Amino acid sequence: MRHNPVHEPQLCSRFHQAIELIGRRWTGAIVFLLLKGPSRFTSLSEAIPDITDRMLSERLQELEREGIVERTVVPETPVKVEYALTKKGRALASAIDAMAEWAHKWIPA
Amino acid sequence: MRHNPVHEPQLCSRFHQAIELIGRRWTGAIVFLLLKGPSRFTSLSEAIPDITDRMLSERLQELEREGIVERTVVPETPVKVEYALTKKGRALASAIDAMAEWAHKWIPA
Repeated sequence: MRHNPVHEPQLCSRFHQAIELIGRRWTGAIVFLLLKGPSRFTSLSEAIPDITDRMLSERLQELEREGIVERTVVPETPVKVEYALTKKGRALASAIDAMAEWAHKWIPA
Repeated sequence: MRHNPVHEPQLCSRFHQAIELIGRRWTGAIVFLLLKGPSRFTSLSEAIPDITDRMLSERLQELEREGIVERTVVPETPVKVEYALTKKGRALASAIDAMAEWAHKWIPA
């Protein structure tokens, strides 16, 4: 590893925004789950430990505003609401996969 | 994209722990900066917007406890304290790189 004691590192502000967005509590979990396919609110809610419906709904709205998730109303009876990743959201796959790989190697089961 | 409306996605708990750790406010930024090389407290503090010394010190201690960062005291006059990634920390490079690449493509400058 390069060892340069005088280096003054620079933070990339776009990386900073991205990691603060995806790293927000539960957001990474939501993206991880949606990478497996579109999902309904209750499936997400059941899969994420300790999340309240209010928090899940807030996070999903945030991800919609950021253009990462899209919400589709399927006109059936009863009406069905589905959440899916957009192209921008699916582009997170390699970052999420790399983090999952790191976790499998370094975080105890 | 696979579309399976009945799928019940499962969250990987190790991924969840990892993203909640690295995604904690400022933690991703610290790891990003340390991937460029060992750094001193003041260099990190100057490179990260809006972080207080107290928060930076708390985050560094957290990363030390997790075995991601190590603190070295260089016995010079004046004493010099350096922070560097451990092997576990350096293993985050591909996840951080993938996130930075996503950010460069999808987050407006």
